[in-house]
Amino acid sequence: MRMDGRQTNQLRPVTISTGINKYAEGSVLIEVGDTKVICTASVEERVPPFMKGQGKGWITAEYSMLPRATHSRNIRESAKGKLTGRTMEIQRLIGRALRSVVDLQALGERTITLDCDVIQADGGTRTTSITGSFIALCLAIGKLSDKSPFAKFPVTDFLASVSVGVIGEKAMLDLNYDEDSKAKVDMNLVMTGSGKFVEVQGTGEDAPFSREELGELLALGETGIADLIGKQIESLGPLADRIGG
Amino acid sequence: MRMDGRQTNQLRPVTISTGINKYAEGSVLIEVGDTKVICTASVEERVPPFMKGQGKGWITAEYSMLPRATHSRNIRESAKGKLTGRTMEIQRLIGRALRSVVDLQALGERTITLDCDVIQADGGTRTTSITGSFIALCLAIGKLSDKSPFAKFPVTDFLASVSVGVIGEKAMLDLNYDEDSKAKVDMNLVMTGSGKFVEVQGTGEDAPFSREELGELLALGETGIADLIGKQIESLGPLADRIGG
Amino acid sequence: MRMDGRQTNQLRPVTISTGINKYAEGSVLIEVGDTKVICTASVEERVPPFMKGQGKGWITAEYSMLPRATHSRNIRESAKGKLTGRTMEIQRLIGRALRSVVDLQALGERTITLDCDVIQADGGTRTTSITGSFIALCLAIGKLSDKSPFAKFPVTDFLASVSVGVIGEKAMLDLNYDEDSKAKVDMNLVMTGSGKFVEVQGTGEDAPFSREELGELLALGETGIADLIGKQIESLGPLADRIGG
Amino acid sequence: MRMDGRQTNQLRPVTISTGINKYAEGSVLIEVGDTKVICTASVEERVPPFMKGQGKGWITAEYSMLPRATHSRNIRESAKGKLTGRTMEIQRLIGRALRSVVDLQALGERTITLDCDVIQADGGTRTTSITGSFIALCLAIGKLSDKSPFAKFPVTDFLASVSVGVIGEKAMLDLNYDEDSKAKVDMNLVMTGSGKFVEVQGTGEDAPFSREELGELLALGETGIADLIGKQIESLGPLADRIGG
Amino acid sequence: MRMDGRQTNQLRPVTISTGINKYAEGSVLIEVGDTKVICTASVEERVPPFMKGQGKGWITAEYSMLPRATHSRNIRESAKGKLTGRTMEIQRLIGRALRSVVDLQALGERTITLDCDVIQADGGTRTTSITGSFIALCLAIGKLSDKSPFAKFPVTDFLASVSVGVIGEKAMLDLNYDEDSKAKVDMNLVMTGSGKFVEVQGTGEDAPFSREELGELLALGETGIADLIGKQIESLGPLADRIGG
Amino acid sequence: MRMDGRQTNQLRPVTISTGINKYAEGSVLIEVGDTKVICTASVEERVPPFMKGQGKGWITAEYSMLPRATHSRNIRESAKGKLTGRTMEIQRLIGRALRSVVDLQALGERTITLDCDVIQADGGTRTTSITGSFIALCLAIGKLSDKSPFAKFPVTDFLASVSVGVIGEKAMLDLNYDEDSKAKVDMNLVMTGSGKFVEVQGTGEDAPFSREELGELLALGETGIADLIGKQIESLGPLADRIGG
Repeated sequence: MRMDGRQTNQLRPVTISTGINKYAEGSVLIEVGDTKVICTASVEERVPPFMKGQGKGWITAEYSMLPRATHSRNIRESAKGKLTGRTMEIQRLIGRALRSVVDLQALGERTITLDCDVIQADGGTRTTSITGSFIALCLAIGKLSDKSPFAKFPVTDFLASVSVGVIGEKAMLDLNYDEDSKAKVDMNLVMTGSGKFVEVQGTGEDAPFSREELGELLALGETGIADLIGKQIESLGPLADRIGG
Repeated sequence: MRMDGRQTNQLRPVTISTGINKYAEGSVLIEVGDTKVICTASVEERVPPFMKGQGKGWITAEYSMLPRATHSRNIRESAKGKLTGRTMEIQRLIGRALRSVVDLQALGERTITLDCDVIQADGGTRTTSITGSFIALCLAIGKLSDKSPFAKFPVTDFLASVSVGVIGEKAMLDLNYDEDSKAKVDMNLVMTGSGKFVEVQGTGEDAPFSREELGELLALGETGIADLIGKQIESLGPLADRIGG
Repeated sequence: MRMDGRQTNQLRPVTISTGINKYAEGSVLIEVGDTKVICTASVEERVPPFMKGQGKGWITAEYSMLPRATHSRNIRESAKGKLTGRTMEIQRLIGRALRSVVDLQALGERTITLDCDVIQADGGTRTTSITGSFIALCLAIGKLSDKSPFAKFPVTDFLASVSVGVIGEKAMLDLNYDEDSKAKVDMNLVMTGSGKFVEVQGTGEDAPFSREELGELLALGETGIADLIGKQIESLGPLADRIGG
Repeated sequence: MRMDGRQTNQLRPVTISTGINKYAEGSVLIEVGDTKVICTASVEERVPPFMKGQGKGWITAEYSMLPRATHSRNIRESAKGKLTGRTMEIQRLIGRALRSVVDLQALGERTITLDCDVIQADGGTRTTSITGSFIALCLAIGKLSDKSPFAKFPVTDFLASVSVGVIGEKAMLDLNYDEDSKAKVDMNLVMTGSGKFVEVQGTGEDAPFSREELGELLALGETGIADLIGKQIESLGPLADRIGG
Repeated sequence: MRMDGRQTNQLRPVTISTGINKYAEGSVLIEVGDTKVICTASVEERVPPFMKGQGKGWITAEYSMLPRATHSRNIRESAKGKLTGRTMEIQRLIGRALRSVVDLQALGERTITLDCDVIQADGGTRTTSITGSFIALCLAIGKLSDKSPFAKFPVTDFLASVSVGVIGEKAMLDLNYDEDSKAKVDMNLVMTGSGKFVEVQGTGEDAPFSREELGELLALGETGIADLIGKQIESLGPLADRIGG
Repeated sequence: MRMDGRQTNQLRPVTISTGINKYAEGSVLIEVGDTKVICTASVEERVPPFMKGQGKGWITAEYSMLPRATHSRNIRESAKGKLTGRTMEIQRLIGRALRSVVDLQALGERTITLDCDVIQADGGTRTTSITGSFIALCLAIGKLSDKSPFAKFPVTDFLASVSVGVIGEKAMLDLNYDEDSKAKVDMNLVMTGSGKFVEVQGTGEDAPFSREELGELLALGETGIADLIGKQIESLGPLADRIGG
């Protein structure tokens, strides 16, 4: 059994609260176990310079942790004067993942920025950020659609993310912080509602892994993603029907 | 009447939720109207270099807003690579204010850092940060005291902060964002439980003010501070009795 | 009696030398006791981006100390790569104060930048910077007026600044560095020629203060400001008559 | 057929020149097609602060491109004043990958820094950097071993890296720049001499991929890695026999 | 005799390999003894803001050392977040020197950037960078000329650079690193094909030098420059005839 | 005749005022024509890390211009967040020059920092900074000597600096800003009291110069330096006798 009594293929409790910010076009507080992330979607009616004049939109993401989101307090990146490599890597990952299920042409020349601010961290902050910011993104696009309907709803499929890992000899789903620190293999998966992979990022720094182990991890991940997408559908309500429509 | 129906000497609704972070030694979510701030207190058993060897402790504060805490999204200071003057000014103010009611000698050689993260902003974020971080600070010192009692409880008095201002010809208490934008005189007050001033920061950029107007503003502030300290006492429970004891 | 033999309500000797820079549109060396500040006003025929298209001007200020303006040498902010919070706070204060007595509409779309460089510091550098840069500002606007008269002279009132504080139990005017280090309450006042407050910034970090003490400090400040404005009038000569006219 | 006439499972020509720097403890110029990277290994007899006192060594990597390594000139990161997210991501990947095949305990308290400087880029610069820096690392450890033999040679297995991708509907090995720009799925693999995975980083930003496609890509990668390890063995000569011994 | 057996007026072996980068408009690997520098010339069809609208071109240079170009590894300037004073001084020198032999009017509104990346350093990296980047510059201008001939070839004269110094009591040409560390007087000369000085930078930090010594050093430098220009002519082939034509 | 009526070999009027700062160990305001520089010397009883444990002292310099020292206002380097290449080059030059006439062994393990702050600039700010900071340095060392005499006075010779240049076809001494902008050849010389060269920095960006022209410029410089050293001797009074003694 796992430290917190879960099965190897069981997610932690997931809670999704939408509309938690009065200004943002889309907002959500997502809690996966003790990991809590505020995701907001902000719409701007222009695109970054490298996208200008293509008639297409852009989706980008920023990620940050409050200083005391973790066991011991971290120095703010604003005080350091620069982002860490870890933060940049996560931001790039979130943005790339979300763009994979958005038809940027259909979105039109606007930018949606997803801010993922980790209020409390207990493992899986990057995967939780992706799962949560997908909802914030849909809400924001839904709001745009209410004002002026799109010819085609720009979100082409669901998208969620989960971590899997090997602890001891066991493959496990959705690692919390303590499990993550002990994992020999650590993998983050981003998948679509149609069961395809958008990102597969596996690392065996402490112990390289075989193709078999990889297979086992992917299977666990598929289960977890399906559960998460179920939660997303619930929280989105009728808006869920327009995705991929 | 004010836009939101309040009397000129009436605070917005105040909600204080303690213990909202599982790692921090003290934590609080304070809501004053639509302004929401998470304040956490983090204890470190060492002092900054300039305080070493004096047998005294140190209290410091950091302040930040989530990018979409406001009407339109702000660029993160971590992305800019530096803090704005406004942020630095506020951080200095919060730390100075809190230190005025802590006996640093009694605290001993340790640092308590107050992180004030504005989740949603609707005016008064600096005053709300002070009022909230005073509670987080007391909780953290209470926790230290539980582990190893202080000869003298290091918090010497209550401390709260509120804004006042002149709109049109009327002095008003606790301005929200819309009121703040119209105010000709804008003043932030920090006061103790015994009714003394710790900080008086008044600015009449748009219209210099007379000594009479100043008097009126101070009187309004005193009322508001007393109300806020009432709320602090409630939320601190039995710990409140030890302050200034 | 005070360390340097002054009365509690007595300013240090004040010397104002105008025209000390051959390039600047307005320039002054102001000495208040051993505190010496060079203030220059530079006019640019454009406004910052956030002011564009409003037909109004802008006044801004920068503040710096030479490394050896103080007892021991300070590291240059240019070498550190960033401004300290103290510097930013002072710059914002000077700019805000000066703008309160300038009719930006009458000034027209141009920016005047006041550079306050502290050559030697002995307490009161920020208040001295305000008092001195007001003169440099008037000289620069006078020069603009000589080239092309304004419909209405844009300076609406005199403006000066002084510090007051409580040392021991005594309220005192215009603290020098040694006095400032001992003060329990420290207050900077900016006032107009008509006796109104533009900025009241009082701090009782070491000892909160009562409303009575506040009153005493404000009264002392009023005296000092009146004296300083007298000196400004002398140094401005005929130009003084056009202010507020 | 591919643009350059290769089979889908064929690497570009690989050339490895060792000892190309007279100061570095290990150095190599690796050319994979038109991609050319200088890898040097530098040994320091100390470890970074977070590793102190554990009796273990550390391996880290830095990555950079000359400004004109690419079609059009890039601004230097030293001129920008900060590293891009891409550079940080690659540096972290190289370091993590190399550490997976080094017994840090056996290495002892020293740091080996691998510098990967891309002289000319034509796709696959991060994978080429890993393959090349593994050789530089072995040379440096071999040199340490010559001075004072290790109880156990600290390199536990071979390590190489290659890219694979899907272009049109075809899975292909070792993409050059033009192929990479057209790939719908892009994957970087790091594998050991014993055929295990150290890193699997697949991205389907433009088109999510199925588990079948993933399988095909992994199979192609295995072929390429085996070929690269053959080249490594050749270039290492007798030193190759000590790896994993 | 010198450590490496050279005469006092003898250069180290010089090798110049052109066309070593497939993207750059001009490229060269120059080796002077164990000092090796890659110089690339990149052409952009625009000029920096301060040159706009003058109908003239611009030549600029950047200089950098690979971290392990030297005996012990240097921290990258990109990791430090800023350029050292030494790097800036060298970059300014290279740019200034090259501009002295280019008719910027004849070049037209375009910028040529010379990147000098030191692969291995053994003294004289700045002089070698100048000598090498002159060739890269000529190649780039030659290429421009092939596409669309200039009315007048914009390179007006040859240009090379060498170091001279006083070691013990002896003046010597082209110091390597060990010699340079012992030199009492250190001088870098940049001269044209017609024997005129473009830069004379002599420093006697450890021992001021007389006018006689200066004369001796200049004479040695003239010899060395003449030899280097001979090498440049060889490596440029027919293009050499167009210079100053 | 020159614009300002001087002979080609004539300095501008030179004024040296010592003791102008009440805190610094040595201070001077030096005026050469309209160029005005405040030089202060600050003594610290420790040396930088790279000099530790050698029993030797260190001399270093910093240089800055007030924003309105020039015709049009310059952005502060502290606001930019970094020093320009020009500033770094000048700082390095001043430090190097001063060290050439100080016996660092005799000085003992302490650092003297020379701050050169240009109050008004009209050409020759770097040479004026050297000439002035030599005096501040002597005053500071004199003061150290008064407290505790040196076995040997650490200043070994006088040191001054001047610019020379070619305007039209004429070599001229001590260029002001307007002359400097027109000069084809621009040279800064640093020389000792015994007539030797410490720095020769000549640049012919607009027109390379012959050995004859170089000779003429050096001769002019010698004259100017001798005059400046005369002024230094006057201003130093009896302390002058101890230099080189």
